[in-house]
Amino acid sequence: MKAKGYMGKILHIDVGNRKIEQRPLSDPVAEKYIGGSGLGAKILYDETAPETKALDCENPLIFAVGPLTGTKIYNSNRFQVIAKSPLTDIYGESNCGGYWGEAFKRCGYDAVLITGKADRPITICLSNDQITMDEATSLWGKETFETDHILKKQYGESSQVACIGPAGENLVKFANITTDGTHARAVGRCGFGAVMGSKNIKAIVVRGDKETELANPDKVRELLKKLGPSMSEFRKNMGAFGTSGGMEMCEEIGNIPVKNWFQGPFTDGARKISGQRMAETILTSNYHCGRCVLNCGRVIRAVDGPYAGKDIGGPEYETIALLGSNLLIDDLSAIAKANELCNRLGLDTISTGGVIGFAMEAYQRGLVSKTDTGGIELDWGNHKAVFSMIEMIATRKGFGAVLAEGVKAAAEQIGGIAAEFALHVKGLEPPAHDPRAKMTVALGYATSNRGACHLQAFSHDFEEGAFIPDLGSEQLIDRFTPEGKAENVFLMQNFMSMFDSLTCCKFVLFGGMTVEPLTQFLNYVTGWDLSADDFLRTGERIFTLKRMYNTRLGISRKDDTLPLRMLTHKRGGGTNALPPLGMMLNEYYRYRGWDEFGIPKIEKLKELGIASKV
Amino acid sequence: MKAKGYMGKILHIDVGNRKIEQRPLSDPVAEKYIGGSGLGAKILYDETAPETKALDCENPLIFAVGPLTGTKIYNSNRFQVIAKSPLTDIYGESNCGGYWGEAFKRCGYDAVLITGKADRPITICLSNDQITMDEATSLWGKETFETDHILKKQYGESSQVACIGPAGENLVKFANITTDGTHARAVGRCGFGAVMGSKNIKAIVVRGDKETELANPDKVRELLKKLGPSMSEFRKNMGAFGTSGGMEMCEEIGNIPVKNWFQGPFTDGARKISGQRMAETILTSNYHCGRCVLNCGRVIRAVDGPYAGKDIGGPEYETIALLGSNLLIDDLSAIAKANELCNRLGLDTISTGGVIGFAMEAYQRGLVSKTDTGGIELDWGNHKAVFSMIEMIATRKGFGAVLAEGVKAAAEQIGGIAAEFALHVKGLEPPAHDPRAKMTVALGYATSNRGACHLQAFSHDFEEGAFIPDLGSEQLIDRFTPEGKAENVFLMQNFMSMFDSLTCCKFVLFGGMTVEPLTQFLNYVTGWDLSADDFLRTGERIFTLKRMYNTRLGISRKDDTLPLRMLTHKRGGGTNALPPLGMMLNEYYRYRGWDEFGIPKIEKLKELGIASKV
Repeated sequence: MKAKGYMGKILHIDVGNRKIEQRPLSDPVAEKYIGGSGLGAKILYDETAPETKALDCENPLIFAVGPLTGTKIYNSNRFQVIAKSPLTDIYGESNCGGYWGEAFKRCGYDAVLITGKADRPITICLSNDQITMDEATSLWGKETFETDHILKKQYGESSQVACIGPAGENLVKFANITTDGTHARAVGRCGFGAVMGSKNIKAIVVRGDKETELANPDKVRELLKKLGPSMSEFRKNMGAFGTSGGMEMCEEIGNIPVKNWFQGPFTDGARKISGQRMAETILTSNYHCGRCVLNCGRVIRAVDGPYAGKDIGGPEYETIALLGSNLLIDDLSAIAKANELCNRLGLDTISTGGVIGFAMEAYQRGLVSKTDTGGIELDWGNHKAVFSMIEMIATRKGFGAVLAEGVKAAAEQIGGIAAEFALHVKGLEPPAHDPRAKMTVALGYATSNRGACHLQAFSHDFEEGAFIPDLGSEQLIDRFTPEGKAENVFLMQNFMSMFDSLTCCKFVLFGGMTVEPLTQFLNYVTGWDLSADDFLRTGERIFTLKRMYNTRLGISRKDDTLPLRMLTHKRGGGTNALPPLGMMLNEYYRYRGWDEFGIPKIEKLKELGIASKV
Repeated sequence: MKAKGYMGKILHIDVGNRKIEQRPLSDPVAEKYIGGSGLGAKILYDETAPETKALDCENPLIFAVGPLTGTKIYNSNRFQVIAKSPLTDIYGESNCGGYWGEAFKRCGYDAVLITGKADRPITICLSNDQITMDEATSLWGKETFETDHILKKQYGESSQVACIGPAGENLVKFANITTDGTHARAVGRCGFGAVMGSKNIKAIVVRGDKETELANPDKVRELLKKLGPSMSEFRKNMGAFGTSGGMEMCEEIGNIPVKNWFQGPFTDGARKISGQRMAETILTSNYHCGRCVLNCGRVIRAVDGPYAGKDIGGPEYETIALLGSNLLIDDLSAIAKANELCNRLGLDTISTGGVIGFAMEAYQRGLVSKTDTGGIELDWGNHKAVFSMIEMIATRKGFGAVLAEGVKAAAEQIGGIAAEFALHVKGLEPPAHDPRAKMTVALGYATSNRGACHLQAFSHDFEEGAFIPDLGSEQLIDRFTPEGKAENVFLMQNFMSMFDSLTCCKFVLFGGMTVEPLTQFLNYVTGWDLSADDFLRTGERIFTLKRMYNTRLGISRKDDTLPLRMLTHKRGGGTNALPPLGMMLNEYYRYRGWDEFGIPKIEKLKELGIASKV
């Protein structure tokens, strides 16, 4: 049966030559790479040379949605951005919730790739089939909330805006792309704000009204109904406390970063920055992305600054941990303020918390002086210093210019022993899940295609005590035991590759969206007839293709590692083991069909139908 | 009592300005740093800037002997060379037996440091107090055997010559400095031949007749007599079979490299390349260094080439393993030929075997083609290819120029996955002791100040079943057990730092020259009154000073590691464990009084009387 849910169109905009081109997305390519990051990786792999640098005109900035986007399937309306990352110089992807993804899909596209560099700042506007590139010089320098506000006035309140702030304009290596105005849903990781800035694109505005057709609407409706109760059940907790509802538990098991990943317990602090405490104090309401039934988004009231008295997006778990416990800050209002600044200026909160934690340690150890920081006392817990540093990073002022390069490059600039406590994998600063607390996280960070990432494996929530019944593994292994974890990570990465290609929110897993129902939804929308095995095999193909992109850039086993502190420093506080990474990698490579150096074997590539271009 | 055995003089020759300067070596400095590599490290640390590059005029090439040199104390007449290494860009030292050390001491010096660059090739000649720098243009390009021969004719048969071959002239990063003519005792490791070449010095000729006075000659004689029987006992085996007498045992326990450290057993091969087999076949006689009572040196008859029919130096254990088993070569004559070529051309046999093993693996894996090698088939076991490659390295012809940079830089040039099987620590290729077979070797390689070195700790022979009764540790721990190995390595490195500062051969340990007798000898010669504790504390000071030189260059925990293959690939064949390096390092740093990053703490530096210049 032919796919009905597919518009089957890819848009290519060359902003340098102001050329616009449409290409069909063929059914075989769609079946092999689905959409989202699968499709994006395919385009990136096929159409770029290894020499292309992240901030070169030729690096395509790809926005992509999946076949389920535009439907009412739970939480299916995210979008993915894919490009070579300026922060890591390897494969990059980052996804975002909000409403932009659906509005883009409604213009009739599966993906847009943008190349070139505009001769002056522009806004790209897609309005169904109409595409314009409009002067945006007056917007250059403006913060994201204001940019969103102005553009919605200009293009209509039904438009959705993805824009960069000053950080992206200033090519900060971990600048983000922000949507949803003051609610700030962000394409956070990998520094795509800088890629957008390098192309002189201030914003991409989308508004469309095309419907996503379903091959089998009745079946979709039926399955949605079936999953309804479990989704509602999960919503109770997520809605009430958001992603930081588990903060105290995360502290207890040693999951959260404390003092640049050095310290153990943060018990009292964790209580003060938990989702429960937020609900009792600064929380004013919830926010949810398009088609979301879980409502994890937080809304708080800004107490000062240009948005004083207004409701704006509040911080979620990763942000609270990285800009809170990681810096020994236990004041929720201060964390919310730091979050607001990052959102307005267009900075990834995870990397920002990571680089500031690094900077505080460098300051404490005397590698960075008060003269270097321009008078700022970068002491642990000093939230005012954090506010100042966020602004200096976004504007590349003084010491901010050093940190704007990310921890890896900053450590090289600072020299001495700075590299010893610059925590990153392949250049990406880790999110708030300590690999010393869970062996799947250790292996997942080391092998994720974009560097230290918890989402490409997402196994930290499914390692112990929780379980996906139809994924293929029935092992529940103590979190400190390394043996057997390779299978878990292998399976989860394949499954998550499908989530990222379908651009679905991974939280629906907790509401029962496991392998079988997600495969069924995909079949019901497209008219395909994939088995669960086909589905997971597709995920494996996509994950492997991303690896091949990196292989071509020289990535191999030597890069599949963890920050030294995570391999050698026992911090206690709920953690226990130091990950025996070498042993886990040996096992993992066998599951993947990669050789001892982490290079996919030719037979595996053939089996997956990936042509070798290495 | 004042030191009588001390000449107390350091010579500084600036070959660029042809300036010669003598300085006194004060007694306090001598007591703190002894001589040899201790004194050399002190000079290097005090007189060079971190920016100085290894092949800069300013990098001093230091030759140093110890207070026992020139006496009849067993095996005390080696010499040390110290400089920044062009192979590793960090602290470098290398010692050499033969007769040059004693002849240098007899000129009345403890050390000579050479800076600058001569405007044309020169020979430096020290003849007692007379120092000349003589034109050596006609020698440039000549091999070491011939150079030695010509210079002995020119300066007298009683002269000793330390010279470089074409490899040193061509700045091959692992070129050596050779003495003893066709018997070829070499300053092998760290590429000091290139430093000498960069200064346009072809040779340093020494002849002297000054006596080393003894504070207490009767006591010296008495102690020599006491140790005589145990030395003679050890001589039996060493004299008969040389250092490769233990080859089969080394194969059995997995100590030797096989196929670029990848393969397990090499049982039949090991028998064919053992010292016993050599004694039955190609061996013609023994050779010994000055004042040596052990006679490990091998003499064989060259079968072809310019020395056909003549007796020349034969290969020892490290050479046989690196140019033999490591390349899957089990033909002793071929190994002897490769050794002869390295000696004549002036190449370190360990690094040469290491880079050729790396190149063979790159060839096997298709990263290097027959076109790249100029038609040479770099197949495992192809000894003719090895001969060709040695010549190409020394002359930097074709692919030889790539390998001439050492495995680390060669892997960067070749790219792809080459770095995955480029085995080195801090840039130095490992000698023939597998850290997967002995945990002290793992920790020793990772922490040696010059990179992958078995001699700075020398604990591989004292880990299990052998034991130094007066060293301070009474632990005998199974070789695969990591716990407790830090103490062994800590103690042995301190003790070996004294051996290297006294420029004694470490094999006398097996003849009973443990801490007490060596301390006594030092006291009897100098008139000092050191306790065994003082003696070992001096070793700790010297080891730490070398670390501080490296600390100043940015070396820290991140560099204290092992090649990936040795951390992750189980090769079997008598090896068993993969070294859990992180855990061992944590324990080791505690013994050393270094912080978690491997930086010596201020209190430790104060305690040892080392001023911090970091």
